[in-house]
Amino acid sequence: MLDKVAASWKATVLTLHPDMFPGSLGLSLAGRALEKGTWELEKVDIRDFADDKHRTVDAIPFGGGAGLVMRPDVVDAALNSVADNGSPVIYLSPRGRLLDQDLVKKLAAGPGVTLLCGRYEGIDQRVLEAREVIEVSVGDYILSGGEPAALILMDAVIRLLPGVMGNRESADEESFELGLLEYPLYTRPAEWQGRKVPEVLTSGHHEKIKQWRQEQAEEITRERRPDLWAEYLVKRNDTKLGR
Amino acid sequence: MLDKVAASWKATVLTLHPDMFPGSLGLSLAGRALEKGTWELEKVDIRDFADDKHRTVDAIPFGGGAGLVMRPDVVDAALNSVADNGSPVIYLSPRGRLLDQDLVKKLAAGPGVTLLCGRYEGIDQRVLEAREVIEVSVGDYILSGGEPAALILMDAVIRLLPGVMGNRESADEESFELGLLEYPLYTRPAEWQGRKVPEVLTSGHHEKIKQWRQEQAEEITRERRPDLWAEYLVKRNDTKLGR
Repeated sequence: MLDKVAASWKATVLTLHPDMFPGSLGLSLAGRALEKGTWELEKVDIRDFADDKHRTVDAIPFGGGAGLVMRPDVVDAALNSVADNGSPVIYLSPRGRLLDQDLVKKLAAGPGVTLLCGRYEGIDQRVLEAREVIEVSVGDYILSGGEPAALILMDAVIRLLPGVMGNRESADEESFELGLLEYPLYTRPAEWQGRKVPEVLTSGHHEKIKQWRQEQAEEITRERRPDLWAEYLVKRNDTKLGR
Repeated sequence: MLDKVAASWKATVLTLHPDMFPGSLGLSLAGRALEKGTWELEKVDIRDFADDKHRTVDAIPFGGGAGLVMRPDVVDAALNSVADNGSPVIYLSPRGRLLDQDLVKKLAAGPGVTLLCGRYEGIDQRVLEAREVIEVSVGDYILSGGEPAALILMDAVIRLLPGVMGNRESADEESFELGLLEYPLYTRPAEWQGRKVPEVLTSGHHEKIKQWRQEQAEEITRERRPDLWAEYLVKRNDTKLGR
C-alpha cells in the first residue's frame, strides 16, 4: 500500500437533525480545516431508516413514563448504513463516561468517530448493547439532545488534528496536561485601570516566571477543583517514586 | 407594576465569532422558542470595541509563552456596552467551576445570562477580576474557544424555560435529580434480534417497575460514576436522618 495517502479524520453523525451540522464547526478554525480536507463530515439522517409511511423513529417506553424512546430497529438500521473504518461508535448521553482531554487525544489519533445523537428520552438499551456502543457524557447536565454534545466533542478533537491550529492558537497546555488548571494570563496594557501586571512577568527572569506560573496553577487548582488537585498530588508522588 | 409582562430570558453573547450564534439553537426546540420570544439573543462583536485601525483585540502574553491573550481594555469596553439587567456575567473557561444541572436551573430561573467567549489562549486576568466575572467550565477538555461551550450552556438552560419542551421531550429527570444516572429505556418492538424487554416492564405492576428502575439507576451509577455514587449515599443518609 505504498500509494496510500493520509486519510482525513472522519466524523460520522447519526441524528434526527442533520441541519445542525457542521454548525459552528463550519466556521473559523474547524471550518477552514473542513475546507482543506483535514477532516470530513458524513451525516446520516436516522429518520431515513424508519420503515413505516409516517417515518416513525420512536415509541412510548415499556413500563410507562413521560417522553418517547428511539426504537432499536431504526437506530440499528442507521448504524448498518455506516461503513466500518475502525472508528468507535459513541452515544452522547449523560449516563456515559465523562469526556476528558485524554479521550479527546485518543480520538484525534484514530481514524475518526461515529456519533450517535439521541433525542427525546433516549435510545432503547438493546441496540446500545448489541452494537457495543460507548456512552460518553460531556458533563453533568441535561441537553435537548445529543447534537450539541456531538459538536463539543468534535470541536475538541478537530483542534488537535495536524495543521488545524495556527500561531494565534497554540496547543501549549502544559499546566492542563499535568492535571492543573491554567495560570492567569496578562497582556498589554501593562497597567490598566490602576491594575498592574504582576512584576515577575516583566522581569525577564525565565526561571522565576516558570516557578510563579506553576505556583499559580497549583493554587487555582487547589482552591477551585479539589478533585483535580487530589489526582495531581497522586500523580506527582508517583513521578517522584519513579513509577 | 401590575402591567408588567413576563420578560423573556435573554442570552447576551460577547464573541469574536457572532456568526456562530444561534447555530444549532436556531433549530428544533430552541429555535421554535426563539421565534416565539421565549428567549432572546443579543450578540456583541468584541472586535467592534478595539480602538486601533487594525481592530486588534489581542497581544502576546507578558512573561512569554505561545498564543495570544485578549486585551482587558477591549473586553471591558465590550462588557460596558451590555445593559445591566441583573444577569450574571459568565466567562466560559476550563479553569471555571464545572457546569452542572443545579447551575443550569438557577440560570433558567433568572433574567438571563451574559456569556463572554474567549479565543486564543484566553482573556487578561485583570478584567475578569475587575468585573467579577464567574468562570464556568462545561467539562475537563479544551475547546477551540468559548463559543461551543456557550452553545451548550444555552441549550441546557433553554430547554427548561416555560413552554419549551413538548410531550415528546419530557422534563422527567427523577433519577438524575437525585444524583443518579438514568435507568435503561426500552420501547417497541418487545422482542428485537432475540433480545426481549425485561419482563418486569411489561408486568403492569407499577410498584415493581419503580423499584426495578431505582435499582438499575443505582447499579449503573455505582459502576460508572463512583464520584456521583458517593455523593448520592451522603444525600440519602442525610434524608434518612431528616437533615
